[in-house]
Amino acid sequence: MNLPSKHLEDAVREFSMLPGIGSKTALRLVLHLLKQDKDTVQQFGRIFMNLKDEVQYCRECNNISDSPVCHICANPKRNRTELCVVEDIRDIIAIENTQQYNGLYHVLGGLISPMEGIGPSDLHIEPLTERIRQGETKEVIMALSATMEGDTTIFYLHKKLKDFDIEVSTIARGVAFGGELEYVDELTLGRSIVTRVPYQNSMMK
Amino acid sequence: MNLPSKHLEDAVREFSMLPGIGSKTALRLVLHLLKQDKDTVQQFGRIFMNLKDEVQYCRECNNISDSPVCHICANPKRNRTELCVVEDIRDIIAIENTQQYNGLYHVLGGLISPMEGIGPSDLHIEPLTERIRQGETKEVIMALSATMEGDTTIFYLHKKLKDFDIEVSTIARGVAFGGELEYVDELTLGRSIVTRVPYQNSMMK
Repeated sequence: MNLPSKHLEDAVREFSMLPGIGSKTALRLVLHLLKQDKDTVQQFGRIFMNLKDEVQYCRECNNISDSPVCHICANPKRNRTELCVVEDIRDIIAIENTQQYNGLYHVLGGLISPMEGIGPSDLHIEPLTERIRQGETKEVIMALSATMEGDTTIFYLHKKLKDFDIEVSTIARGVAFGGELEYVDELTLGRSIVTRVPYQNSMMK
Repeated sequence: MNLPSKHLEDAVREFSMLPGIGSKTALRLVLHLLKQDKDTVQQFGRIFMNLKDEVQYCRECNNISDSPVCHICANPKRNRTELCVVEDIRDIIAIENTQQYNGLYHVLGGLISPMEGIGPSDLHIEPLTERIRQGETKEVIMALSATMEGDTTIFYLHKKLKDFDIEVSTIARGVAFGGELEYVDELTLGRSIVTRVPYQNSMMK
């Protein structure tokens, strides 16, 4: 885009760097900020300037936290034998909202993706094996996205964890509850037939 | 959203303040920033902290500019008798891209919107009348959005400008070029029949 001001261009470029924001949307956001009063815009900038310094990570599970140990790891009522491996904090929020899980989490901070140059060493995997070695973990539940990256990461972790005396499971995949069969994508429907489960098992639990 | 960190919450709130960005998208953007290195995120913050101080406006047309007079107002080849009134810089970019206009612009910085509490005094209207009073303007072209706010603003400006010895026009409204009639919305189609123009007039110009 041909902009008449370097400062405007700088601001637009910063927003365009974010995922899902193109240059037109970026310009719209910058113009919105320019209409706000100076304090508001300065505060916007200041919060992001200090972001990396101020955000801490739980030393147990790598979740974002304001204290050295996050509120989930510090909660004595949680089941410490179950460890749910997730990509990031958004997955924790989603799983917590279901109110179906009472164990602990482990945040990888990403998924293995050769396309984006993200390898196992970029993720929080060493601390996971260390945690299992030292801890009370009996089951590791892989709650990763059902994508190529998620599957690759599960495959890698499964190999990493096979020498430990623990169970490794993945969350169930199949037709969504409430989903009408004719609208389910082919791959999911096909896999859900191949990986069918005995009637009692799936409905009665 | 229930977030485990105040700093994370602050950053998410700042992004959610922007138009079209909800709390889920905001969290996604913040997590993206947290994955970048510290310099990148600091620069992101710094650019917005200084934004309001650094961005200047053309003293003639109120367009964003790095110099006191913008490159359009300073261009001696532009036709100084035509003044195109627009909402913001995005409209200038759009009109410049058509390569159909060689006059000057005047940026209002918004539209009159009682719903959002924006009145004539919040817009750059006084400098417009001042500019017409002093200048060589012969025609003012209203290139504002075809919305309630745009129409209200045109109505207000038209009343404001009626004592000047100038022509006031609006950009043509009707069925878009290349548009198939059956898909045109009712209002546009209806108005385009009512405001039909003689054959020569519309096609030969």
